[in-house]
Amino acid sequence: MRLEAGCELVFEATAPTPLILMLRPRSGSGQWVLREEYTLEPTTPVVEYTDSYGNLCQRLVTPQGHFRVYTTACVETADTIDVEPAAPYVPVQDLPENVLQFLLPSRYCEADRLGELASEIVGDRAPGYEQVEAIRHWIHTNVTYQYGTSDASTSAAETAAKKIGVCRDFAHLGIALCRSFSIPARMVVGYLYQLDPMDLHAWFEAYIGDRWFTFDATQTEPRGNRIAIAYGRDATDVALATQYGPLTLKTMRVWVNVKA
Amino acid sequence: MRLEAGCELVFEATAPTPLILMLRPRSGSGQWVLREEYTLEPTTPVVEYTDSYGNLCQRLVTPQGHFRVYTTACVETADTIDVEPAAPYVPVQDLPENVLQFLLPSRYCEADRLGELASEIVGDRAPGYEQVEAIRHWIHTNVTYQYGTSDASTSAAETAAKKIGVCRDFAHLGIALCRSFSIPARMVVGYLYQLDPMDLHAWFEAYIGDRWFTFDATQTEPRGNRIAIAYGRDATDVALATQYGPLTLKTMRVWVNVKA
Amino acid sequence: MRLEAGCELVFEATAPTPLILMLRPRSGSGQWVLREEYTLEPTTPVVEYTDSYGNLCQRLVTPQGHFRVYTTACVETADTIDVEPAAPYVPVQDLPENVLQFLLPSRYCEADRLGELASEIVGDRAPGYEQVEAIRHWIHTNVTYQYGTSDASTSAAETAAKKIGVCRDFAHLGIALCRSFSIPARMVVGYLYQLDPMDLHAWFEAYIGDRWFTFDATQTEPRGNRIAIAYGRDATDVALATQYGPLTLKTMRVWVNVKA
Amino acid sequence: MRLEAGCELVFEATAPTPLILMLRPRSGSGQWVLREEYTLEPTTPVVEYTDSYGNLCQRLVTPQGHFRVYTTACVETADTIDVEPAAPYVPVQDLPENVLQFLLPSRYCEADRLGELASEIVGDRAPGYEQVEAIRHWIHTNVTYQYGTSDASTSAAETAAKKIGVCRDFAHLGIALCRSFSIPARMVVGYLYQLDPMDLHAWFEAYIGDRWFTFDATQTEPRGNRIAIAYGRDATDVALATQYGPLTLKTMRVWVNVKA
Repeated sequence: MRLEAGCELVFEATAPTPLILMLRPRSGSGQWVLREEYTLEPTTPVVEYTDSYGNLCQRLVTPQGHFRVYTTACVETADTIDVEPAAPYVPVQDLPENVLQFLLPSRYCEADRLGELASEIVGDRAPGYEQVEAIRHWIHTNVTYQYGTSDASTSAAETAAKKIGVCRDFAHLGIALCRSFSIPARMVVGYLYQLDPMDLHAWFEAYIGDRWFTFDATQTEPRGNRIAIAYGRDATDVALATQYGPLTLKTMRVWVNVKA
Repeated sequence: MRLEAGCELVFEATAPTPLILMLRPRSGSGQWVLREEYTLEPTTPVVEYTDSYGNLCQRLVTPQGHFRVYTTACVETADTIDVEPAAPYVPVQDLPENVLQFLLPSRYCEADRLGELASEIVGDRAPGYEQVEAIRHWIHTNVTYQYGTSDASTSAAETAAKKIGVCRDFAHLGIALCRSFSIPARMVVGYLYQLDPMDLHAWFEAYIGDRWFTFDATQTEPRGNRIAIAYGRDATDVALATQYGPLTLKTMRVWVNVKA
Repeated sequence: MRLEAGCELVFEATAPTPLILMLRPRSGSGQWVLREEYTLEPTTPVVEYTDSYGNLCQRLVTPQGHFRVYTTACVETADTIDVEPAAPYVPVQDLPENVLQFLLPSRYCEADRLGELASEIVGDRAPGYEQVEAIRHWIHTNVTYQYGTSDASTSAAETAAKKIGVCRDFAHLGIALCRSFSIPARMVVGYLYQLDPMDLHAWFEAYIGDRWFTFDATQTEPRGNRIAIAYGRDATDVALATQYGPLTLKTMRVWVNVKA
Repeated sequence: MRLEAGCELVFEATAPTPLILMLRPRSGSGQWVLREEYTLEPTTPVVEYTDSYGNLCQRLVTPQGHFRVYTTACVETADTIDVEPAAPYVPVQDLPENVLQFLLPSRYCEADRLGELASEIVGDRAPGYEQVEAIRHWIHTNVTYQYGTSDASTSAAETAAKKIGVCRDFAHLGIALCRSFSIPARMVVGYLYQLDPMDLHAWFEAYIGDRWFTFDATQTEPRGNRIAIAYGRDATDVALATQYGPLTLKTMRVWVNVKA
């Protein structure tokens, strides 16, 4: 499907503030950026660089006062995500080198603390895709989706305990549970068509068989029409805006529409 | 200045052909991509990756028959390029690690063969910017710009001998002469506003003082309003289209316009 | 000083187990590896790769049974570490790109939770080196060093609460407190001459002025004669041995001696 | 086989000279460094870094006068190299991204000029291993090995014309011919047991099937017991010593012995 997706962020800064944005989707396998726009008001010098995960990062210092970021992209996406119950677990010794880092615990994904829960959930499923799907399904069934119940410091272990959170928490828990089984898992942030209410979204991918598969514990059915913006170990790596100073997000608007 | 720049390439393939394109300018210091479009007709799966120089590369297999690539971008550029006669030569031991590779000879820049010519040109100029400017000026004055006098295999040593060529040859010669003096130099391809006749363009950068400076031996005056698309050791690294099979470029159109 | 440092690890595996070792110090600024030995018994195929931090990693599958890793190196080290109270805080916008990742929270360093404590500790010290030294000194003074009081899942926030731990916990707390002030900080594991009792050691570095400085909250005085083995965000990245299966470390021996 | 291999280089510098050495073999698939020594006399500060090919580079400024580099390593090597006539050609679209650069022409490997010769040599061999072996065999049979017939500026096209050269020229020609057929090929420098006369050696690898295979046009039979030190596009990337100033190599000694 061809989607037009974007967001508008309006900040207020009491002083010039360093800001790192990650708002430029890249063309990759499964998505092709046909057109994009990215504007800053007022116009501000920006340096764009690629981080160690391959994400495009926009680095700048906001001026004092009002600062508006507007970005929109027309992207060709896949209508469905791949579902391959037979995709097998990959023994650690056979993983590509750059996938190994996604086995490690990270700020919000304390894989080292969730092994017991993971075992209970997974039971005797076949190693690989079916384990990850069991994890995804368990989260979807057992964790309540509710805004305002978690914050920027909430981690997977806390979500496992409280069983409540938002998409970011669902993803962190999925990632942590996968890693506790030595299945590489990474965080994705991006857009999802017909997400309700519309917002930026987060989900996770697990490395099974010979590649990354998409999983989204917030959804009942496997759904395509996703636009990935950034990949990382967890939310610390893929924050759409990381600020270093007194910057307040005043308004945020997100849209994902079908493009004729 | 805000420029709208782009190109349209139309290919004809007698069989499906692997093709690597490098046609997506990145926002960097000195340029900011406000909007871009990139379309392929017919629609074709593409994987985009970053090469070892940080360029965005689009990898695909063209279908048989007609294949059209259309890309255009609205870019905020600098009206001028920096001219700093006092910028000093950087001793090799003080160069950043990732700059060192631009000291080495490469396919089209046989720095190892041009030391004598470089010495003659540079004379007793102060080491650094003034040497590079002397090189640039010498090429501009002594090499005739003429289409059809060189081809895809012409190297700097040949251009030094024949004293004729196009922008690519001018850049190769500048790069080779700089490197023969242990000044790091790299190739840039991109757009130049008011280039006449309009075409994709090539120039070079030299690392002096603490950063890269722009030099263009095809021009009389230092001119800004450039949009860099790709950087590399020489033309092999920055080919806008590298094909691996029977693909014929039928037509090519390039534009750079002021955007109100 | 010229040091001979190494370690011997003896494992017992009930089944072949994937293992990633990080036990090969690299020559860098401040240390030069004159000689090293690295043996595995029984001999086992190994692939060595460089991770995203530049550490050399040795990847293998241990055979079932007894497995011995022996590594020793003769290294020229600096007798002292640099102490520069005047080194200033670097505003985020001026940090090198590859340093930015060390501002983010990580598994064991919840910088996002320790801002208040950091403010109390630092008071009105001049931004930069003096802040980090205040943090280091506060940890040294207020946290009790005691084996067996923490484990592989203990994080900086927990150490801040319990005020007890080992070198790894001291380092994590120092890192988290620095990052809460937007000072990049990273974990180092390696050897320290005359550490008592002798063991592998962990400390941290903070990026101030224009480079990384060494800090060690376990020590009273600034001490040199360190051999760095690996760098990372925190202990997850620099584990000397990461295993993926039923491997038991039976004995471990570490030595650091002066080499005539 | 377990080999002890190393070299001693003695330089004389009329002034302090920046020097980049590439003399530290890494453990990789097929070789494991059990022990190594690396000494500089007089002792000189060195920074070691990894270049874009993964080679360890030692960067320093030699003092004025006498400068001695001594390096030796005990390495477990494979006794044989893999010979797989059935390994197929990999279509460009299926090559790993980091292999693509080895399709491009480079300073000493003008693949763009040698397509005709390659076609003649290869005839109707099956695409892949057999083509590369035909190239290797043709070079071995048709190019005369003779010291002093080529120099640091000799390229593959020249070697194809003169049909004389040393190991480096043989490798360059093999690489250029492979690339003209869109087979990725790279240069390797290192040690070869029982090379006669003993010296540092160069050979090439071609990417076929799903990995790199070793080819050596200087040898009659496929021979193992090689220690790779560095990989690159051609000799510019893998020079064991690259100097930037008045440094003279006075003596050089190389050894490769069986280690009991």
